[in-house]
Amino acid sequence: MTFSARMAQEILRKKSPVLVGLDPRWNSLPEILRRNVDETDLPAVAEVFRTFSCRILDVVAPHVACVKPQLAFFEAIGPAGTLVLAEVIQYARKKGLLVILDGKRNDIGSTAAGYATAYLGKDSPWGGDALTVSPYLGEDSLQPFVDAAEKREAGIFVLVKTSNPGGGMLQDLSVDGKTIYQRVADWVEEKSASHAAIHNENYGCVGAVVGATYPEQLAQLRERMPHTWFLVPGFGAQGGTADDVMAAFDANGLGAIINSSRGIIFAHARKDFAGKFADADWEKAVEAATLEMVAQFQEMYT
Amino acid sequence: MTFSARMAQEILRKKSPVLVGLDPRWNSLPEILRRNVDETDLPAVAEVFRTFSCRILDVVAPHVACVKPQLAFFEAIGPAGTLVLAEVIQYARKKGLLVILDGKRNDIGSTAAGYATAYLGKDSPWGGDALTVSPYLGEDSLQPFVDAAEKREAGIFVLVKTSNPGGGMLQDLSVDGKTIYQRVADWVEEKSASHAAIHNENYGCVGAVVGATYPEQLAQLRERMPHTWFLVPGFGAQGGTADDVMAAFDANGLGAIINSSRGIIFAHARKDFAGKFADADWEKAVEAATLEMVAQFQEMYT
Repeated sequence: MTFSARMAQEILRKKSPVLVGLDPRWNSLPEILRRNVDETDLPAVAEVFRTFSCRILDVVAPHVACVKPQLAFFEAIGPAGTLVLAEVIQYARKKGLLVILDGKRNDIGSTAAGYATAYLGKDSPWGGDALTVSPYLGEDSLQPFVDAAEKREAGIFVLVKTSNPGGGMLQDLSVDGKTIYQRVADWVEEKSASHAAIHNENYGCVGAVVGATYPEQLAQLRERMPHTWFLVPGFGAQGGTADDVMAAFDANGLGAIINSSRGIIFAHARKDFAGKFADADWEKAVEAATLEMVAQFQEMYT
Repeated sequence: MTFSARMAQEILRKKSPVLVGLDPRWNSLPEILRRNVDETDLPAVAEVFRTFSCRILDVVAPHVACVKPQLAFFEAIGPAGTLVLAEVIQYARKKGLLVILDGKRNDIGSTAAGYATAYLGKDSPWGGDALTVSPYLGEDSLQPFVDAAEKREAGIFVLVKTSNPGGGMLQDLSVDGKTIYQRVADWVEEKSASHAAIHNENYGCVGAVVGATYPEQLAQLRERMPHTWFLVPGFGAQGGTADDVMAAFDANGLGAIINSSRGIIFAHARKDFAGKFADADWEKAVEAATLEMVAQFQEMYT
């Protein structure tokens, strides 16, 4: 089954377009997990990352279709972190979750193919269902990822219009009436449309990262990219609301997944949750935050 | 000592601006190393990657200042590959080589800082001297890398004008008479110049990747970026010659490092070396290729 078909199936089954970002950051973890652990002992920190991530997966698996481990935070603690990353990916798959690896990889030719070999598909060494990819190197850097995604029934999400304020430095520059991000968007849509047509599906395997923090551009890009899955960061902690991202969805509640990282995984520290959960009950805070976010999109699936 | 000062010191000491790329690709390795190894047994493959990489380092260490492990090829074989990568980095450092990690990382805010924490500086978990970085996400994605590089006496190399034919898709687009790559170049130069001034040095810690395959743009970028180290890919196998890259250097033979990967590490398979080395003598081929390349630049240091 294609990545796109699996995405659609799981989103409809769980009635939830929520994508939970797994960003294990030492200083943000519940105090109860960090207690008595020396933060300079990286294998011990990795062990905590594993516990934290797997318990998050236990909590969110019934409620969301997909999760997004952020590779940077696992790599940040060295080789011990990458070993735990591999285990977390496998654990998520066992829980029936689609795993989108947020690595923003990019390179050319056989090197790009190396990254694709690493991360794309259940038989790859890391076992991701999809990978985020950065487009600065151009089309011959993106094509190897597209080819691998098609072949391995996996997906990629190309950075198009990102959620950060500085993203405009290059992305918003306009050449002949067309911004840089629109050019990347058109390339992605063309690839995804042709893949969608081959499989007689609504969406292809080449997705786009489009931030929630620019709702107007998000709506315009939806028009421009009818066959492209959107991975939408910037919801919650970064300021994006459910209203801001509604335009990303089609009439069936498909076509987009909305990421929340901090707002869910570090829910124990949310100001609006203050006093509601004991420190030992951090998983209950995660569950409450997940259900709250899922509820904001539930109407689409009734 | 700053990254820039260490680079200058080692290049002058070795009289060599050659940067050897470590790209362990299974099918390209000397047959003698692959014999009796099952390529689906990834820990066994990782072991071969380690042997291959460390023996390359033994051969090239007397002749070059720096090496560039390509993270994609280590990640391509899963967690076992990343463990070997960590060992290879440490081995290179022990040999007195500067280690430039080619990961083309990019992300925003604290996630970018996560990558910087991972890879930059001798006390980081991976222990790189520098990291390649991709600029599509804009200035607030680059600044955390710049900050970490300055703080940790490390460097970064931002993709500016890459060596691949498709690089022009975005990089060559011109807005108000200034291409995208020139805009990235100006940002990099500003950061590097200010860092250079603080330390009273000629170059700063924010370098640029500028391909050998576009010699005209290379020369123009040198003019435009007088305080920026260039990492120049595209030499040799990709078609760039010593003449093509001479403009990258200052009068002291500094300011640039010229990368060769395949042409050196897979020298045993070079057509112009055919019949010269027995398969078991692949390290002699590596040494010959290294010396041949170093010789092309030696005049600058006499």
